[in-house]
This record gives sequence, C-alpha cells and structure tokens, in this order.
Amino acid sequence: MQMSEDFNVPQLGKCTVNSTLDLSRKTGEGIFNYIPDSERVVMNTNLGYYNECLANNRVPVSFEKAGPKEKIYFDPTKTKVAIVTCGGLCPGLNNVIRGLVNQLNKRYGVKRIVGIRYGYEGFIPEYGHDIIDLTPEEVEDIHMHGGSILSSSRGPQDPAEIVDALERMNINILFTIGGDGTLRGAQAIMDEITKRGLKISVGGIPKTIDNDINLIEKSFGFETAFTSAAEILRGAHNEAKGAYNGIALVKLMGRDSGFIAANAALAVQEVNCVLIPEMNFELFGPHGFLKWLRHRLETKHHALIAVAEGAGQHLFEDAGKEKDASGNVKYKDIGIYLRDRIKEEFDHKSFSYSLKYIDPSYIIRSAPANANDSLFCNLLAQNAVHAAMAGRTGFTVGYWNAQFTILPIPRAVAKRKRISIEGVLWSNVIETTGQPKKFSK
Amino acid sequence: MQMSEDFNVPQLGKCTVNSTLDLSRKTGEGIFNYIPDSERVVMNTNLGYYNECLANNRVPVSFEKAGPKEKIYFDPTKTKVAIVTCGGLCPGLNNVIRGLVNQLNKRYGVKRIVGIRYGYEGFIPEYGHDIIDLTPEEVEDIHMHGGSILSSSRGPQDPAEIVDALERMNINILFTIGGDGTLRGAQAIMDEITKRGLKISVGGIPKTIDNDINLIEKSFGFETAFTSAAEILRGAHNEAKGAYNGIALVKLMGRDSGFIAANAALAVQEVNCVLIPEMNFELFGPHGFLKWLRHRLETKHHALIAVAEGAGQHLFEDAGKEKDASGNVKYKDIGIYLRDRIKEEFDHKSFSYSLKYIDPSYIIRSAPANANDSLFCNLLAQNAVHAAMAGRTGFTVGYWNAQFTILPIPRAVAKRKRISIEGVLWSNVIETTGQPKKFSK
Amino acid sequence: MQMSEDFNVPQLGKCTVNSTLDLSRKTGEGIFNYIPDSERVVMNTNLGYYNECLANNRVPVSFEKAGPKEKIYFDPTKTKVAIVTCGGLCPGLNNVIRGLVNQLNKRYGVKRIVGIRYGYEGFIPEYGHDIIDLTPEEVEDIHMHGGSILSSSRGPQDPAEIVDALERMNINILFTIGGDGTLRGAQAIMDEITKRGLKISVGGIPKTIDNDINLIEKSFGFETAFTSAAEILRGAHNEAKGAYNGIALVKLMGRDSGFIAANAALAVQEVNCVLIPEMNFELFGPHGFLKWLRHRLETKHHALIAVAEGAGQHLFEDAGKEKDASGNVKYKDIGIYLRDRIKEEFDHKSFSYSLKYIDPSYIIRSAPANANDSLFCNLLAQNAVHAAMAGRTGFTVGYWNAQFTILPIPRAVAKRKRISIEGVLWSNVIETTGQPKKFSK
Amino acid sequence: MQMSEDFNVPQLGKCTVNSTLDLSRKTGEGIFNYIPDSERVVMNTNLGYYNECLANNRVPVSFEKAGPKEKIYFDPTKTKVAIVTCGGLCPGLNNVIRGLVNQLNKRYGVKRIVGIRYGYEGFIPEYGHDIIDLTPEEVEDIHMHGGSILSSSRGPQDPAEIVDALERMNINILFTIGGDGTLRGAQAIMDEITKRGLKISVGGIPKTIDNDINLIEKSFGFETAFTSAAEILRGAHNEAKGAYNGIALVKLMGRDSGFIAANAALAVQEVNCVLIPEMNFELFGPHGFLKWLRHRLETKHHALIAVAEGAGQHLFEDAGKEKDASGNVKYKDIGIYLRDRIKEEFDHKSFSYSLKYIDPSYIIRSAPANANDSLFCNLLAQNAVHAAMAGRTGFTVGYWNAQFTILPIPRAVAKRKRISIEGVLWSNVIETTGQPKKFSK
Repeated sequence: MQMSEDFNVPQLGKCTVNSTLDLSRKTGEGIFNYIPDSERVVMNTNLGYYNECLANNRVPVSFEKAGPKEKIYFDPTKTKVAIVTCGGLCPGLNNVIRGLVNQLNKRYGVKRIVGIRYGYEGFIPEYGHDIIDLTPEEVEDIHMHGGSILSSSRGPQDPAEIVDALERMNINILFTIGGDGTLRGAQAIMDEITKRGLKISVGGIPKTIDNDINLIEKSFGFETAFTSAAEILRGAHNEAKGAYNGIALVKLMGRDSGFIAANAALAVQEVNCVLIPEMNFELFGPHGFLKWLRHRLETKHHALIAVAEGAGQHLFEDAGKEKDASGNVKYKDIGIYLRDRIKEEFDHKSFSYSLKYIDPSYIIRSAPANANDSLFCNLLAQNAVHAAMAGRTGFTVGYWNAQFTILPIPRAVAKRKRISIEGVLWSNVIETTGQPKKFSK
Repeated sequence: MQMSEDFNVPQLGKCTVNSTLDLSRKTGEGIFNYIPDSERVVMNTNLGYYNECLANNRVPVSFEKAGPKEKIYFDPTKTKVAIVTCGGLCPGLNNVIRGLVNQLNKRYGVKRIVGIRYGYEGFIPEYGHDIIDLTPEEVEDIHMHGGSILSSSRGPQDPAEIVDALERMNINILFTIGGDGTLRGAQAIMDEITKRGLKISVGGIPKTIDNDINLIEKSFGFETAFTSAAEILRGAHNEAKGAYNGIALVKLMGRDSGFIAANAALAVQEVNCVLIPEMNFELFGPHGFLKWLRHRLETKHHALIAVAEGAGQHLFEDAGKEKDASGNVKYKDIGIYLRDRIKEEFDHKSFSYSLKYIDPSYIIRSAPANANDSLFCNLLAQNAVHAAMAGRTGFTVGYWNAQFTILPIPRAVAKRKRISIEGVLWSNVIETTGQPKKFSK
Repeated sequence: MQMSEDFNVPQLGKCTVNSTLDLSRKTGEGIFNYIPDSERVVMNTNLGYYNECLANNRVPVSFEKAGPKEKIYFDPTKTKVAIVTCGGLCPGLNNVIRGLVNQLNKRYGVKRIVGIRYGYEGFIPEYGHDIIDLTPEEVEDIHMHGGSILSSSRGPQDPAEIVDALERMNINILFTIGGDGTLRGAQAIMDEITKRGLKISVGGIPKTIDNDINLIEKSFGFETAFTSAAEILRGAHNEAKGAYNGIALVKLMGRDSGFIAANAALAVQEVNCVLIPEMNFELFGPHGFLKWLRHRLETKHHALIAVAEGAGQHLFEDAGKEKDASGNVKYKDIGIYLRDRIKEEFDHKSFSYSLKYIDPSYIIRSAPANANDSLFCNLLAQNAVHAAMAGRTGFTVGYWNAQFTILPIPRAVAKRKRISIEGVLWSNVIETTGQPKKFSK
Repeated sequence: MQMSEDFNVPQLGKCTVNSTLDLSRKTGEGIFNYIPDSERVVMNTNLGYYNECLANNRVPVSFEKAGPKEKIYFDPTKTKVAIVTCGGLCPGLNNVIRGLVNQLNKRYGVKRIVGIRYGYEGFIPEYGHDIIDLTPEEVEDIHMHGGSILSSSRGPQDPAEIVDALERMNINILFTIGGDGTLRGAQAIMDEITKRGLKISVGGIPKTIDNDINLIEKSFGFETAFTSAAEILRGAHNEAKGAYNGIALVKLMGRDSGFIAANAALAVQEVNCVLIPEMNFELFGPHGFLKWLRHRLETKHHALIAVAEGAGQHLFEDAGKEKDASGNVKYKDIGIYLRDRIKEEFDHKSFSYSLKYIDPSYIIRSAPANANDSLFCNLLAQNAVHAAMAGRTGFTVGYWNAQFTILPIPRAVAKRKRISIEGVLWSNVIETTGQPKKFSK
C-alpha cells in the first residue's frame, strides 16, 4: 500500500495573497469555509482496510481535498490564463471551458484569459493558429453545445516550444483539458517550466469519454456518452426483434475499458451480451460466443450484443502494432471482425438470420453534455481554478468517494482504470444480461 | 394530364350495412358528417391549371377523399382482420398497428384482429411463425416504442399461398404496412383474391422512411427520421469544427430520393453541402466537388457534408447490377467512396485535414415516432379502416394537400417521388447551404 | 365566395433591379426558376368547388405564390432592414430572425440589418432600448435556443412614432414577427408609411403558437408546442393511473382555438377528453361532463383531461370584460374553474378520487423549435425576404396546401382560424379519445 | 460518534440455503465473489476522522455492504414475494419493480411474485383492490415509462391488517418502495411481524425525489428530476430575457431540502438566485431579496429565480399547522407568496417589469427515468433482493461513497438529509449564480 505523501501535488511557492472570494474561516457563520491544506479524502472505504491501519498504526492513503484556499499564490489582477483542449471530442468540453472562464473572471477577478486553438498545435508558431480572448460574454451560451469552441488536435508537441509560447504570452496558469496523452504532455510542460525556473501553474482537467483515468471515479462526458449509447442500444433492440433470428451488433467506444458498454447495457436492460476489453472470450467451441448466440436465437429468436471497440484484441494475430498520431495503439476492428465471423458461421450452417451491424462512432461524443455532466463539468472547473490560484501545479482534478480531489498528474496516468471482471459492476452486467459468466472454448 | 377516373379505387360490392359510427348526415348538428363518395381532393393547386381546365372544359384530376362512410360493406360483428408489417423498420409502425386495432375494435366493433408475424413470411406455413391476437390491451403501450411488435421480413411470397392462408383464417380485411415492394405484393394478393372471386379487402398503408411514394405528400416516420438525422448532423458539425480543416461526412438514408438529407439539412442549417440521388455531380475538375471542398477548407477550415445513400451512382461503373432479397437494386456505397476519394485527393496534395465519416444507418429508423408522426400514423390508420370497412380494396391511403385520400395501389407504385432539382425544396437547400448550384467537371 | 383579386398584396413600385440570386428563367437547366407574378395557389382543394367554377365560368380563389422574383424593387447594396419580435414567446423566433439575416446577407447581399429590441417599444425613444446590428456571425447559433434574442413586449405603439424611427434609421424594409395584434400594428405602420409617401416595405411574419391565423395552414412553433404538450400529457397520464380514481387535468394553451389540445391529444393517444373553445359543453346534468367523468372513473378508475385555456368561457357570467396590454380579452381561468367544480362534485358525493391539476404555462412556449419547425421557420424567412425585396408591402407570408403564399395582412387578421366541430380534426379527436360527441345538460 | 453496531440490520435467522447464483468464493476465477458478512463500507471519508480513530483506538462507523451472500435464508422455490409502491410518483418506480422481478425470477428462481396495487391500501380488504401477478413478461417494457404500474396511495394503514394480508397470501418477503412515511410504515409492519413471530422479511427501497433520505447519498429518480427541472429553468431563462426587466420565478420540488433546485441551477448555469428551505432569507430591507432583485433588473434587465417549495416557511405566520393524508406538514406556497410580494413591491414603485411564474409541479415527477437513474434503479433492486433473500429485514438499501449498503430503516428515517449552508454544494451554487451569500434585513 502506497504512503499518502506520494499523492501530494507540487506547489509553486508560498501563498501570500488573500483570496478574493470572501469565504468564512469558521463554521456557524452560514458561509462556506476555506479548505485547509490538511483536509484530505481517504482512498479506501472498506472497513477492513481501516482495521488493518489501526492494527498496524498506519495512516490511510488519501488525496488532497479540492476547494478554495484562504491564501492564494497568484494575484488575480496580474494573472493571465490559457486554456487548451486536446484529443477527441467529449461531451462537456465547452462546459469546462465556460466554468473555468466564469470562475476565473467572476469569482477571482482574473480578466485576461486566452483560448489556445486546435490543441497543443495552437502553441506552435508554424501552424499559425489564432488565439481567442475568453470572456464571460464570449462563453455565455457555449455550454449548450457539443464540441469545443477551441477545437482540438491529436498528438504531442515539443514542450520547449510550448513553454516558449507561454513565456511570450506571459501566461501564469495553463489549463489543459485532455486525456492520458494530454496529461503526459502537461507533465512534460511542467517539467520544462520547472527546468526554466518559471512560476507557471499547469493544471490538467482529465477528459476521457471511456471513463478510464486512474484514481478518478467518474470523468465528465461519460454519463452523457453511455446515455446516448443506451438510446442506440434501445433502437438496436428494436432491430433485433424486428426480424426473425434478428441480431443487432453494436460497437461502442471503449478502447481499454468497457465502462460505456457495461453502463449502457445496465441502463437499457435489453442487451443480451456485453463484450469488453477486460474479458477474455472465445468465439468458437462448444462454450464459445458463437454457440451461445446460436442457442439464444434458436430459443428467443433475437439477440442484442454490445461490444466495446477494444474488446477481443487477443483474437487478432497482429494486434497492437500500429499507432495513431497521439501515439495510441491502433486497435483492430472487433465490430467488423465479429460481424464477419457471425456471417461465416451462420451462412455456413444455412441458418436463417438477419444481422444488423451498428457503429455509432462519432455520434456519441459530439453531443452536448446532459444535466448531470453539465453540473459536474462546472464543479470540476471551479475546483481546477481554486487549485491553480493556490499555486498547485502538475495537478489534475480528481473525483473520489463523491468528492473533488487534487492529485499529481503522474498518479492519474500511471495506469488506466478498468472494469474488474470479479467486481460488482461486471457482476451486475452478468446478472442483467443473463449472459454466461465466461465464453471459453 | 390523366383523367380523374384513373384514380378510382376498386370496390368489393355494394355497401348495405349501416355504419356503427353514428355520425351526422348534415351540417349544423355539431357532429362530423359521413363523407359522401363524391367528395374528392384535387391534385393540382396551381391556378394556371384551373384556368386551363376552364378554357378546355376539363374536369381537374382528383383523388377520392378518405373518411367514414354512412353505409359500409362489412358487418363488423362478422369481420376478421389481419395486419402485417413488411420491409425495413420505420418510426411509427407500432402507432399504425395500434391505430388500426383501436379504430376497428373501439369504433367499429370488430373484435377479431390478428397480427401476422415476420412480414409476408408469416402467411407461409413452412416458416412456422405464430400469429398474435391483437386487442386494445395488447397494443396499449406499443406506440411509445420503435420497431414493430409484429416484426418484419423482406421480399415477396407466393400470392396464392398468402390467399390460401387468408381463406384458412377467414380473413375479411388485410392491412399490409410496407413500401413499394410490399404494395406491389398487396396488389398481387388482391389480383389473386379477385381471381378466386373472394370478398377480401386488401389495404396498403404506405411506409417509406425515404418519403418517396408517388402521389403521397408525406409518409409516416419520415419526419422522425429527418429529425434524428438533423441531430446527427448537428453533432457532425461539432466534429467538423473540432479539428483544423475538419470534414464531417454523413451518409443518410435515401436510396432514390434525397428527402431525408435535404430536410435534415434545412432543419439543422449547418450543412455546407448536400448530395442526393436526383442530382448529377462531378468529383474532379475545376468545378467539381473536391475542388469546392478544398476551397471551403482553405477559407472556412471546416466542412459538413450530407450525402444520401443513393447519390452518385453514376460515379460507379458497375452500379445497379446486384439486387437484395426484396428485389431492390443494391446500391454502391457512395459514403465510403466519397470518403476514400477525399482521402486520396488530400493525402496526395499533402493537405492537412481531419476527416470523420459517420454512417448512422439503423439508428435512425428504429426510433419511436415523434409527436407529429404519431398523430399522423393514427389518422392514417383511422382512414385505412374507414376505407376497408366501406369495401374498398387494392387501395392505399394517401395524403395530398393536407388531406387524407384513397388511391389505387398501382398509382402509388407507378414511379417514385423524387426531389425536383428545379423545384422549391432543392432551391431552399441551395439557399441554406450556400453550395454551388452544380458540381460540373 | 370572394374574388381572387381581394387577395392581392400591395406593391411599392415597379421592380427594375436585377435579382442577385442568379436563378434560371426556364426549366431544363437544373436550376430553380424565378417565380413569375402570375403563379398562384388555389385556396380550395375540393373537386366540387371546381365543378361549380366550371359550371359558372368563375375563376377560383387563389393566393400569390411566394418565391424569388427575377426583378426586384430594392437595390441590395443600398437597402437597410429592421427586424422586430412582438408578443409572447413562441418556439422558432430565433430561427426566423436567423433565416431573415442569412437570406438577406448571404443571398441578396444586404449587409445593413438591425434588430429592434423589446417589440414595438424598441422604436419609441422614451423607452431608451438599444438596437442590435444583425450579422450572420451574430446569429450563428441562435436557432438552437428558445426565446428571442431581440426580446419582446406586448401592446401597440403609436404608428407615427414608429415611422419616425424608421425614417431616422433609414430603414427600407421592416419585418415584424408577431401575432394578430402585431400584424394589425404592421398594417397601421404601412398605412402611415403610405400616408407619408415613403417607400418602406412592411412584412409581417405570422406568429401564433395557437395556430389560429386565418388562411394560414400552420404557423411556426405550433408543432413544437403540441409536441411538448403531448409529453406533458403523457406524464399526466402516469399521474392519472398512479392513483385510484386518479384524474389528471391539464390546461394547455389555446385562447380562441383548441389546436394545441387537439393535436397533442391525437399525438399522445391517452387523453380521455379534450375540451376546447370551439365547443359548447355543459358540466352539470345527466349528459354533462361531470357525470361522464364520474362514470369513467367508476369503470376505468382513471381519467386524463386536456382543456384549452379559452374553453368554457360560456360557463362564466362575467367572461370577456377585462383586457390585457395587447388589447386581448382576459380569459377566465377554465383550468382552475374545472378543478374546483370537480372537487365540489366529488367531495360532496364522498367519492374517493385523486385530482392532479397541471398548468405547464410558459414551459411550452419557451422551448427551442424542433427540427420540422426549424426547417419551416427558415423557409418562412426566406420567402419573406423574397417578397420584401420584390417590393411587396403590407403582406404576410402564408402557407396553404403545402406551399408558401403571400397574402395581404387584412386577410390574415380578418378572423381567427378555429377548429370546426363538424370537421375532420375534431372527428379524429372524438374517435381517438372516445369521448361523447357532446356534453349537454 | 455512533458505534458501528448501531447500523446493523436485523436478521430473520440463520442462512442455511445455498445461493442459486453460482458465484465464486475466491479471487482469480474471473467470477464475482459472494460478499462476506464482514464487508463494510465506512461512513466518513475525511482523513482527519481516521487519524482521530487511530489516536483513540476506535473503530470507524460503517455500513453493511450490499451484495449476494453464499448462504441465503429463503428457499427460492418456496418463496413468495410482494411488492408495493407508496406515496407520490417518482421517476424510476417501474425500473425498480422490473429490477426486483427479474432478479427474483431469473437469478434466484423465485417465481411467485405479486404486485399490491394502490400502496398500502392494497392490503386492506375493504378497498377491494386487485393484485397483479408479476412475471418477467409482464414487466418487460415497463422501465421505459414513468409512473408506477402498481399505482400508489398516500398515508399509512393499520400494520396489523397489513400483516394479516401478508399471512393470508403466504408472503415471505415484502418490498415497499416509498419515502419517509412508507419506510416508517415498513418498520411498523416489521414490528408487527416480529410480535407475531413470523419469518417475513420487510425491505424498504427508499424513494424520495427530493433526495433527502438520511445516510443515502443519492436516491433514484432524483437525477431525472433535476434534469427536467434544468430544462424548465432553461426555458424560464428565455422568458426572463424575452421581456424588459423580465423575471422568471420557478417553483421546484423540495419540501425540506433544496437539492433539486440547487442541482438544477448548477446544471443549467443561468439561474441568478436559488432559494431553499435550508436557508434563512429576508425579503425586505436594504439587504433583502427584493432590493437585490431590483438592483439586478436595473443592471441586467432580467432575472431567473428558482425557489424550492419548502423554502421561506419562516416568512409565514401560520406555517406548519396543517397536515396531508400522509401526515406530512402542508407547506405554505412560497411560490405564490414570492410572486405576490414581487408584484406588490414593483407595482408600488411603478417599476416596469414582466413577471412569469412557473410551477411545473407534477410534470417533473411523472417522467420516465433517464439512463443513469435506470441503471441505478436496477442495481438498487438487485441489492434489495440479495439482502432479503439472505434474511435481512427492516432494512433499506442505501448508497454511500459510491457503494450500495444495507442499513436499518430507523437510521434512514432518523432525520432528513439537508443541504449544509456551509457545505460545498451550496458554496458551488453561490459561486455559480453569483447571488449574495445571505439575504438579511
């Protein structure tokens, strides 16, 4: 078990500026209190863990609790902030941008905020992208729309060039909104800043529609995504039932984790089988997927299958070799593969069936955030601003045990969060779909 | 110009039964009047046409007006009805089924109604499909769901076998809900019935998500379809703007006509180019589509393109040769083709761009009907019942100049309705997208 | 029957400017043709009417067909346009504004467009309201939002003061978007303009969420409104069924006509009784509404009732005496009245029931336009611009037999469109709800 | 601080039946493990609390963790279950019913499940309500609809009569889905069962659209409710901006707590002031609400206010004296009160404004559950079944630190959960709305 201090976030320097927020320092005044640095959220909520800590006199592992600080590091009137969105679209990007701008401008009084366009590319002179001044007026309605008003791009850029740009623009705080790769980029930028001895805070706002960032309970846009996925599954269920021995096969997002597929299946209730990257499954043999599918059709005459895009990579001989612009492994298309295997199997056996393959792809990620995600994005942004104003750097805003936390970027990118095949979520999927616990040979 | 009588609908025999509806025969009673057989809706609404008729003493072309008749042909207490849904899913199928059942049962008192499962297959003994008793209780909530509770299948079946089944089941009225092919099938069934001298009414309820049935202003489910398409285009617009020189290419339904693409583009307003089957367009050359796209990206840095699935078949050498189970020509995939041509063109020219290809396919057609389509389905069903109870056969329910009409099936399937490139709808698309009037070489 | 010429629209002067639209003058070029002034849409689609015309050698009544003209009156480069929205909110207002701005700016090249704020008040100096420059950028996203970016106000203002303002601002075309009262105001403005010998076009874009403007088949926002109403009725149905002898009573918009209530009931299918302004109904007595309601509860144990706000004014002794700021009669609250009568009746008889009264009021009208209304708003705006650019004045854009028309304002405000109790719409409501044809004493 | 044992749940007897679930007993098999009785979820996640526990050698307070048990109490083949829904509608009721039925029937093999109609009334013979057999077929589609297929009623019934009915029907497990009062009723039923020495498990599934049940982090339907509320607020914002000095005042649910109002305001971002039961606020005086409102209008010309129905009871002299059928205090109508005070204040000062009062009431609670609530309802039901099958009684299923828990009913009803005015949620509301921290005199 790791010691709690590993979860401490770097600090640019001593906080000497009085917060502009005018909050309270003691309970009973009817006003929210500043959060003391000592407030922390424990990671583990299992009683057994605490009994063990008690027995061994060990301090439980914990995260810094996010929130406003009484003393802050940056002087709002002299602070300039840059915001950049990187990687693929995700519902809520505009909500986060708007939340950052409003919190900085209206609550802290930071008036100079710029939007960097097209991801990290926007810092590099040769691309020639413009920047945008971000004011509350500029962002007033953006939270109602999907996409990102700043646009985005994939892939890293040279941290030195980025820090050159930050210096040229006199930026004090940089918020990068992006996934795994973006956060690693943010860490590299922070390292460059540190090397140059600059006082620029770098805050990462974790974005992953797949909900797979480590130590972060839920990420913005994820609920909107599985809500859309659920609706698509519902339609697919109609397709499956609309034909004799109808099969609807839906490929959903989820490169390394099947959270969208699992949650959508739990939400919509009609899915008969979920296949995710975390599970091994065999197609062939008496206990394989295809035999099960055949049996299901023979007894129920329809089947709805949800497959996460990263599932079944073990079925490909040459998986994991190609990479995309962001350096992510290019995954083999399990949707097409499954579709073709089903066809082969049933055509071969002259089995009457009707297969509909559905790949909603970009449809899900370009939608506006739903109400709960909108709320969440706003709180995420508010807490990111609190942390950066207080001089935290190299941090990302987390969410754990229903509280906002601040954790060092390396912790968040150490590994990906995945569904435990032995855990409660997957167990609920098994209970709800009624699918076999395993597809072996 | 055709003479009006060509639009007369066959009649099984003299109507001698008093309608159970208890409507009025004269105005002023505050109750709807039965529709006399003489009421007809004119086809043409252009004043010039009438001046011509006046000048030539010619009767304007017209349709029979749909509605309840004072005397009906079938005795409700002795009537048995079958309902079948054929072809692909379309929003509103369940609403039509429910509308038929409720109108028959609650208004006319016809209690014996059966649902034939899996399209025309359901009549053929060898498939062994069950039938369903349809009651108001059975259909109570079905209108809130997409799909068809009766399921469906593609392709024709032997009319003789179908009529055998109708005879065995003592069916007096058959409602077939389906498209072009289904209506031709219904006509063949009627011909067989006539040949055998049976008194069975066959009514076709026209279903075409593409809205392309001749002489029918709008078909059920079409509005729901273009509403979904519009939402998908809105997300695609976010994708296009989300990247530098972002292109979002969306393939929408529309085999022979571009109504969904055109209407969705008008609804969502952000589409920069619509490509439909009715238009000729060239990809290459100084006035071709690819040059235009390049120019658009260079000036605006994003582009949203909607292409109907049947567009651009002239670009394929081997188009039109394969056929599907329903006998429809298999179209070449213009979406994939365009995607690949764009890639080739821009990759070749080392032009920085980001292309997202979106094919919502089944997502659109499996949704439940929206409010306006729900309403429309119900009225369609009510009028189909009025016509069949009055002994009309070989008919389909039309909608023209905002009124429900009854027309002979051969009229509806004589040709497909298409967008006129010189007409007002396409002109509105040109005005709204700002795309060139033509893409020539 | 009125002679067609009564439907002619005033014209500011001879059209001598070549249209900037670059359309075609003959068919076969694959480009939309300019609409000749002679093109007209007939009003009546009943064949009998034409037989009568033929017999009497009479020209059928018709409307001018809307559309682009080859020669226009205003020189786009020298034209300045003002837009104002008046009266209550209605879904689609922003779509119409956006459609006007884009059509003027992008298609005709009119660059000077101003938005008048807060309705007719915005013209009157003493209110001190600002005006807004309207550009395609300014209106880019507004069609996705409900409300009106120009805001609104109720009631008339002095036409002379308004024309003073138009003169001061050098306005050539004024578009007023509003209902009955607003259109009368537009007519008064036109009269003042005529009196002063000015060449300013006044075009009215008819707005009525109630869909009750004369000679206009459907008005923008109406479908969105009844769609929302249908959703509320669906929830209300759940409330009715959620309790023993549950009654859900929903008051919907509809001052003089029950189109929203009737269409929503047809869309949602669960309503058991619709009460509208066009019908007489009695509450008490053996054939009255309350007796029917009691019977329904005793047999089915739940009831869902939709009442239009203007229904049952005959039940109030002092109805019709108060007026609001727009000069409209203040209606007595039939919702509250019915609620109280039901309570009295059933409490008195110790009848166990549960009554939920639901008044969605502003919720319905402040929503964004749905896809079909968005499309419609855009076409409405495009045609309004065509007409005004061609020098039409004192006109409103109509929609009749599925075509856009231009008609003189006095025609549109001559009377309100209402549901005919003997017509097909009401008949469909009766068929769908199963309610008695009449509630007499 | 309470000792953990206070949170133990009563147990009917020793579990001797092998679970039918066929789960695993050890990790590494790729199958979910049964939950040992010793697994518990800690209540507090504040590190400081654990340091204190460590210092004082105290066991942290914890809840029993929900989940499947290796040994269960009831023999599925001999078990009969009853389900009842009580109190007002809430999104998700049908999802919970469906989840219970499917989990019992499909996973545990319990085939005899009955639905009690109209709440606790359904047990009492004199009401004469029927019961419903609940099978997976019967509940197949119900989760897509709002309301409750079992219907509901308010108020308690005699526990003795209820237990008589349970005995007569040979019920082994009773699930009651309802709020505070319903849970107290369930406790009374359990007490009566205990008194009679019966072995009937009583499980309460907490239902509160207000999200105010003690020790339960979130309750089903709450997210759907604030999502609907957010949409209504968005429309109301359009109303506020649609008129000069426009005020939109929206009354939202929330009798004792303002969670819906607070969360909806955070989701929609446009609310300028939220008033909730947990806060004191003054209307009059230089720091009162009305002065603030006046100032807001003078500077911004529009204001959107959300008020929870239970807010401001301190402003009424006679508040808290009347009670409804369920024994809840009838609250004075703060919505109407505020509306009237605003009118008085501004009319008196001849201040030009436009006030729209919006009371969505039943509209929010009768909607179907959204995707996240659907998922949640299903898990809640699955865990309720696990607990009851394992012989727990007098329990309710909780949710704490993102895990499902089992807690004794008295704990859940000991007090209501409320928003802490000094807590982070309210602080976020203040930050987002920009409203004053207090409205004092």
